Amino acid sequence: MKIAIAQLNYIIGDFEGNTKKIISAIHEAEFMKADVIAFAELSVTGYPPRDFLEFSDFIKRGEDSIEKIKEHTQNIAVVIGSPSRNPEIEGKDLYNSVYFIYKGREVLRQHKALLPTYDIFDEYRYFEPAKEFGIVEFKGKKIAINVCEDLWNLGNENPLYTINPMDEVLPYSPDFIINISASPFHYNQAKSRKAVLKANVERYKIPLFYVNHIGAQTELIFDGGSMVWSPNGKIYEEMPYFREEIKVFDLDEVEKGEKTAEQKPDKMTLIHQALNLGIKDYFGKLGLTKAVIGLSGGLDSALTTVLAAEALGAENVIAVLMPSQFSSDHSVTDSIELAGNLGISYEIIKIEEIYNIIEEKLKPIFGDLPFNVTEENIQARIRGLLVMAVSNKFGNILLNTTNKSEMAVGYGTLYGDLAGGLSVIGDLYKTEVFELARYINREREIIPQNIIDKKPSAELRPNQFDTDSLPPYEVLDEILYQYIEKRQGPKDLINKGFDPALVARILKMVNVNEFKRHQTAPILRVSEKAFGVGRRMPIVGRYLA
Amino acid sequence: MKIAIAQLNYIIGDFEGNTKKIISAIHEAEFMKADVIAFAELSVTGYPPRDFLEFSDFIKRGEDSIEKIKEHTQNIAVVIGSPSRNPEIEGKDLYNSVYFIYKGREVLRQHKALLPTYDIFDEYRYFEPAKEFGIVEFKGKKIAINVCEDLWNLGNENPLYTINPMDEVLPYSPDFIINISASPFHYNQAKSRKAVLKANVERYKIPLFYVNHIGAQTELIFDGGSMVWSPNGKIYEEMPYFREEIKVFDLDEVEKGEKTAEQKPDKMTLIHQALNLGIKDYFGKLGLTKAVIGLSGGLDSALTTVLAAEALGAENVIAVLMPSQFSSDHSVTDSIELAGNLGISYEIIKIEEIYNIIEEKLKPIFGDLPFNVTEENIQARIRGLLVMAVSNKFGNILLNTTNKSEMAVGYGTLYGDLAGGLSVIGDLYKTEVFELARYINREREIIPQNIIDKKPSAELRPNQFDTDSLPPYEVLDEILYQYIEKRQGPKDLINKGFDPALVARILKMVNVNEFKRHQTAPILRVSEKAFGVGRRMPIVGRYLA
Repeated sequence: MKIAIAQLNYIIGDFEGNTKKIISAIHEAEFMKADVIAFAELSVTGYPPRDFLEFSDFIKRGEDSIEKIKEHTQNIAVVIGSPSRNPEIEGKDLYNSVYFIYKGREVLRQHKALLPTYDIFDEYRYFEPAKEFGIVEFKGKKIAINVCEDLWNLGNENPLYTINPMDEVLPYSPDFIINISASPFHYNQAKSRKAVLKANVERYKIPLFYVNHIGAQTELIFDGGSMVWSPNGKIYEEMPYFREEIKVFDLDEVEKGEKTAEQKPDKMTLIHQALNLGIKDYFGKLGLTKAVIGLSGGLDSALTTVLAAEALGAENVIAVLMPSQFSSDHSVTDSIELAGNLGISYEIIKIEEIYNIIEEKLKPIFGDLPFNVTEENIQARIRGLLVMAVSNKFGNILLNTTNKSEMAVGYGTLYGDLAGGLSVIGDLYKTEVFELARYINREREIIPQNIIDKKPSAELRPNQFDTDSLPPYEVLDEILYQYIEKRQGPKDLINKGFDPALVARILKMVNVNEFKRHQTAPILRVSEKAFGVGRRMPIVGRYLA
Repeated sequence: MKIAIAQLNYIIGDFEGNTKKIISAIHEAEFMKADVIAFAELSVTGYPPRDFLEFSDFIKRGEDSIEKIKEHTQNIAVVIGSPSRNPEIEGKDLYNSVYFIYKGREVLRQHKALLPTYDIFDEYRYFEPAKEFGIVEFKGKKIAINVCEDLWNLGNENPLYTINPMDEVLPYSPDFIINISASPFHYNQAKSRKAVLKANVERYKIPLFYVNHIGAQTELIFDGGSMVWSPNGKIYEEMPYFREEIKVFDLDEVEKGEKTAEQKPDKMTLIHQALNLGIKDYFGKLGLTKAVIGLSGGLDSALTTVLAAEALGAENVIAVLMPSQFSSDHSVTDSIELAGNLGISYEIIKIEEIYNIIEEKLKPIFGDLPFNVTEENIQARIRGLLVMAVSNKFGNILLNTTNKSEMAVGYGTLYGDLAGGLSVIGDLYKTEVFELARYINREREIIPQNIIDKKPSAELRPNQFDTDSLPPYEVLDEILYQYIEKRQGPKDLINKGFDPALVARILKMVNVNEFKRHQTAPILRVSEKAFGVGRRMPIVGRYLA
């Protein structure tokens, strides 16, 4: 038996486009003599469809897609994910289902039982968990089909659930498993995923075909890396990361398990590719092509510009340099050098005169009150205004250049440098920004070394440096990582040896700046806990604040 | 037996303050000879604590609060909500529990079984549902204690769940029910709540004591309206809306059911009081006092200013008038009249010179490209910048003045008129804005009639009116209401008689502007479906777009 895996990139709610892509893949697999082709979780709608699932019309269009797909299953069976309606009055209205379709007939519709409802996932918001479990008999083989999380309650590694769906179908003695997933990227996710799948294969001792999405959906990046496992507990093959592919596997060969292949890219390679796809798909799926970036001379905007130029093409990126009276000379020269290295165009707008007239207009109200953060914010907001004007006039989407450390402590101006349609590096701590910059420069100097070497500064007043008000980034980032990614509280952090006063100060900065993060662009997620949809905090509160 | 209901306002994560308030209420009830006092759901932490629940330290502080509260239960039993840990490895880490405490001892800890996970609720993100159900025996009475949603699966009105917790304790023959809730306001919620509680009382034929929160938590406003029901299916008493109160009820009297009392305020009274509390608590709980508003001469900013002045006091509100060359004279005179009516101070900053220099600076880039939405946005963003400068300099929080109709169709400028820390009327359609303005003026002209009567205009170019690009608000708002509140798809709307081309255009405007709503302030929720945490849509997608 030959089993094809279709690792594809869908657009949420684009039923016509998704269905066309699915049908074309079916024909391709049929041409390659596959007996079965498997698509990822909720392929028909794209993942995650979020509250579109509450629209009956949306569900109907998914059902229509399944009907169209059925017409192409005369010679090949199709395993595919789609929402389906719960016919019972009790319980949620929908199931998250995997269909096994053959010769125009639905052979089995297996619902998902374990509904991830944590971090970025909201599945129990929409779906009723499966209570019944079946198996497919096809060409002499018994196939267990299930959806993503249903394989994730094997041991104690993920004790969120109380049942294990695969155990429910064991009495049928399945010959192999097809699991259709929507497993979003973070830089440790491939490792976690492999550990879980390995545990399943070692327990059930049958081949496992695992299909994942690729493609970015706003902030979530699906990395692909679909896999085939041999019963001996080895990866028979791992499909590429961040790229569509349709591939056919011979079940006999997989069962033998005589070959093995596995990708082991390092963290920065993964993050680099993920952000590239994240930018590409944000623009591509919205029908946009061009970006604009405010280039400050600092590393964050430099790195964002490189990533944008790589993803969209140098011809589609404009940099806007907006020096003030507080800007260093090198902020302009370094930026021009970067633009030259990348071959992107740039514009220079000096903001001093605009700043002066605004100060003049505010003078009757402000009187003799001293220069403070207000004036710093005015500069940032003039820049936001100018770069948004370029965005509006030419249709270039503004990319936000804020990093995760700044985003965490609120070191940024709302409607100023926090503006933008998409945050590219908002899930990278400053120390990771340095790391990725060095990675970018690994073969040749793309980012001028001076930009990497200079002391980080917002240049909003004379002789201002980030370290004036923040601890060194190595210390700050470790506290932030422990608090944000690892949910370590103040006592835990103090037990780890951090200064109690510093811990209290940093955690307070994070908590009281929730209001800023509430108003920022979606952030491409590369870590296991990004700001945004996966981290939901009260704005008004008084915990560690 | 005497039962006290404590309808109180908590601050999320303020364990010290909340515990102090709870203990003081216990003593007050004890003084009033109550045998039992009941507090609302998760009173100890405030509701909703969101992802703070993922911090072990946060849970520990809740446990510590319960221990402190126990010390005050020698003469009175306390019924109170707090998160509690799930000792089993399997399942979610926490329960959402109601404690019955007496003489320092935990008599019963009943977990919540029905975990709302829809709209603004994410309870299954954190909590494991109860599987066991008990009852309290206290001074010769058997008391069923349960949490909020556990009473909400009686009939077919809310078929999200598959069990009904009250039925589980019926074998114990309870004498009455204490339900502790966190039921946020929308203008129809009191009605739904009463219908559900009535159905419970009619089914079980025993008294019901229902405790709700009051107080706003960022965008959510809890309206109180705690209730006591007699077994005859009548409301014995309803506690006030939007106000703290501790009240003692005599069980014998409640059982007799010889009196009945019920509040029936109309929609605009409720909305008016809700927004008042929403503003008050946003400021009060963040330790802020002062607001600034950009007053345009239009109705939205006028109404917002009235609400702010009422909630914070006229002395704490500054209006900033920022006319341009496109502004009508009445935009300034009407605004000054309003400021006079309210007794608030105002500043005028003409933006033309700032606009001109920005245009001059952009000229080398824009060349001879014609005036378009870019220049309109520049005006809006200059105003955003100026009003934020006033905000930063004086510590006045900017209130956003956008209404729900504009928010829906994306009729607003990010970082311009969409700026602000809190959106006051962002859950009111424009037709409701008119309605509330008339309500405000019901006794005397607070909002100058000319502001209500003038044709809505953004005044960003000559002779611009909202109706140039939008249908009349009566039509627009009805389509939006059906699409947003009622999740009616395009076919449903066309079946209701709306023009298919108009429906397609409006729904597309809503869907493609998700990116704007992603970056706006929290919106005080007064309807059953507000933009924000209760409505989760993809930004990148292609459904009805």
